Amino acid sequence: MTGSTYASPACSETGDPLLLTPGPLTTSRTVKTAMVHDWGSRDANFIEINRSVLARLAAIANGGNDWVSVPMQGSGTFAVEAMLTTFVPPGGEVLVLINGAYGKRAKRILEIAGRKTVVHETAEDTPPDLAQIEKVLAATPSITHVFAVHCETTAGILNPIAQIGAIAARYGKGYLLDSMSAFGALPVDVQTMHIDAVAASSNKCIEGVPGLGFVICRREALSRAKGNATTLVLDLHEQWTNLEKTSQYRFTPPTHVIVAFHQALEEFDAEGGVAGRGARYRNNCRILVEGMRALGFKPLLSEALQAPIIVTFHMPEDPRFEFQRFYDSLKARGYVIYPGKLTVADSFRIGCIGRLGEREMRAALNAIAEVLDEMGMNRAVARTA
Amino acid sequence: MTGSTYASPACSETGDPLLLTPGPLTTSRTVKTAMVHDWGSRDANFIEINRSVLARLAAIANGGNDWVSVPMQGSGTFAVEAMLTTFVPPGGEVLVLINGAYGKRAKRILEIAGRKTVVHETAEDTPPDLAQIEKVLAATPSITHVFAVHCETTAGILNPIAQIGAIAARYGKGYLLDSMSAFGALPVDVQTMHIDAVAASSNKCIEGVPGLGFVICRREALSRAKGNATTLVLDLHEQWTNLEKTSQYRFTPPTHVIVAFHQALEEFDAEGGVAGRGARYRNNCRILVEGMRALGFKPLLSEALQAPIIVTFHMPEDPRFEFQRFYDSLKARGYVIYPGKLTVADSFRIGCIGRLGEREMRAALNAIAEVLDEMGMNRAVARTA
Ligand SMILES: Cc1ncc(COP(=O)(O)O)c(C=O)c1O
Ligand SMILES: Cc1ncc(COP(=O)(O)O)c(C=O)c1O
Repeated sequence: MTGSTYASPACSETGDPLLLTPGPLTTSRTVKTAMVHDWGSRDANFIEINRSVLARLAAIANGGNDWVSVPMQGSGTFAVEAMLTTFVPPGGEVLVLINGAYGKRAKRILEIAGRKTVVHETAEDTPPDLAQIEKVLAATPSITHVFAVHCETTAGILNPIAQIGAIAARYGKGYLLDSMSAFGALPVDVQTMHIDAVAASSNKCIEGVPGLGFVICRREALSRAKGNATTLVLDLHEQWTNLEKTSQYRFTPPTHVIVAFHQALEEFDAEGGVAGRGARYRNNCRILVEGMRALGFKPLLSEALQAPIIVTFHMPEDPRFEFQRFYDSLKARGYVIYPGKLTVADSFRIGCIGRLGEREMRAALNAIAEVLDEMGMNRAVARTA
Repeated sequence: MTGSTYASPACSETGDPLLLTPGPLTTSRTVKTAMVHDWGSRDANFIEINRSVLARLAAIANGGNDWVSVPMQGSGTFAVEAMLTTFVPPGGEVLVLINGAYGKRAKRILEIAGRKTVVHETAEDTPPDLAQIEKVLAATPSITHVFAVHCETTAGILNPIAQIGAIAARYGKGYLLDSMSAFGALPVDVQTMHIDAVAASSNKCIEGVPGLGFVICRREALSRAKGNATTLVLDLHEQWTNLEKTSQYRFTPPTHVIVAFHQALEEFDAEGGVAGRGARYRNNCRILVEGMRALGFKPLLSEALQAPIIVTFHMPEDPRFEFQRFYDSLKARGYVIYPGKLTVADSFRIGCIGRLGEREMRAALNAIAEVLDEMGMNRAVARTA
């Protein structure tokens, strides 16, 4: 196989470089052109669009009548901080499961809010130890909540969120989930997974543009959270009750982002929801891992632990490989990847979510083969894989 | 003059209803089409756009080298809460000047954050009493900061921000300003007005789309604010130091909103900055007030107190006038206005900011005259004005 047989170069539907990163992501042209209008936020049309967005989000998580979606202006972290500071009361205590940057971030949010934390930390390539979680919960009755990250985007690892939920339920603990990078591609079932609240955002697997987070909340748990929040803007209880009462946001919503998100949800449904979206990403991930292996790269995670979201590769030991040159040459060809930030291994990451399919993944692999050629390495591997 | 001589119907450049509200606003077609691309947030192009946005914002406020602009994901209130919780330390105490909903909101933010407040409140049609402010500051040395709203959008009143700043400076107090609805149309000079921080957002007088707030901060005051914040996401000190160090946001920025904001700033400059933008809005406001007077409506505020942002009109006493019908009929014609929420008077409001000029204001007046006709009132007034 020669480098150039992978595929011809690819770009986004609007001619932009392809974003193979944890976000912002490549989105469709139709999602973006939905933004070429203005809406009054108090107007019936916009209110209906917003209502539809929130109802669909809850439905994706199998939230029946007992769950509600609460939007939060800002990025995904705003939704995570809103979730933690609204659901965990001043006297609460959270078992935080950490195996990457986003678990650590949740711990920091709780500390700033003055909430007690207990940490169960494993390496970035290692899922939490379920027996150990059980032991901590049994030994620490003061714990009120368990917090987990669904796909820990730091390494791209899939955490066992159903099993964690079952343990949390058995011990009568609230269960708060950051499903930012997985929501929409990997199943989240708030009912069978015993979830109280799950946070995600507009610009991950639903493929909207960035600017809105959301939290799907068990109505009963949210009702009990009145008065917990440590800020005005991040108070999910107030955001919810005000939306229920007036159909309007307390503070100006990012109207254009929300209308684009609505279009993204239409396209998500057309692709077959979580099953369809997940299948495309799994295919992207398989093509990427196989192609990279053929080029001599080694993924950090075993197949069983790898979520089809973003793949971490070990930095090659070949001294001819310079990551900055590799990154820049790919960027010059229209492919944006992301350096890794792991403690367990020197690495880089390539995402497989966003408006990307087989053609785009093969084109990216082709560009990678060319760049390796350029660096004078791996020619044999690339040609014989 | 017959009703129909005002002007032919108008709509936005993208065919949408005109938003004569305090926001979201009508924006230009070019601002919105700037969003029909995707950007990687860590990419040189985006970083340069973002840098340019922040530098221009500080320049609009005459911020020299000693001031910095710090962006904040979310709506304007997110920027106000970020400003208050970052600048006012745990032991701080704020004199909050209130003559409307936004002053009240600042007080609530400070209370939630556990910061002490002293209030000087006047009615929504009455500016603060400068002698009284001075008296309070003289009598209460524990006060660390003064907070004021530039244009209090509740009634549309212009508050005397320069005079307040001079008093705050005389007593050695920090001065925090919410210039949300005025920034870009009315002069803000952080140097001569002795301002420590001023908050505004993308979707007011700069005419971007909603989704980004910002705070222009005196560098020295911001440096001293390390560790004050009550949250992770609203910490302006961390947001600033991280941007300085890495040129990147701590959390995913609303890339599309920021690129649209950059385009809006280009158009703002092309219009002649604050002078040009302010002149258009003053002209809009004059046309609106004259036209409404001719139709028998009475503005709440005297000319001296009226900011050229949004005008509050008394609800007519004529029993044939029904506000909901008035609102709906205007909406059906493509003009969105806003109900008033004042305690001093039953009223409604019409905005004159956003992508609106003489033609749009005259078309709106024409529609208003038609609706009055329809309600069987005011025909004589409309015809003879
Ligand atoms: C698991 C997880 N949580 C939280 C975040 C933070 O989201 P944002 O950058 O939108 O604040 C991310 C972003 O990639 C993520 O992957
Ligand atoms: C003076 C003032 N402050 C704050 C805000 C709040 O801004 P946002 O609705 O974007 O949160 C507004 C909105 O109109 C305002 O006019």
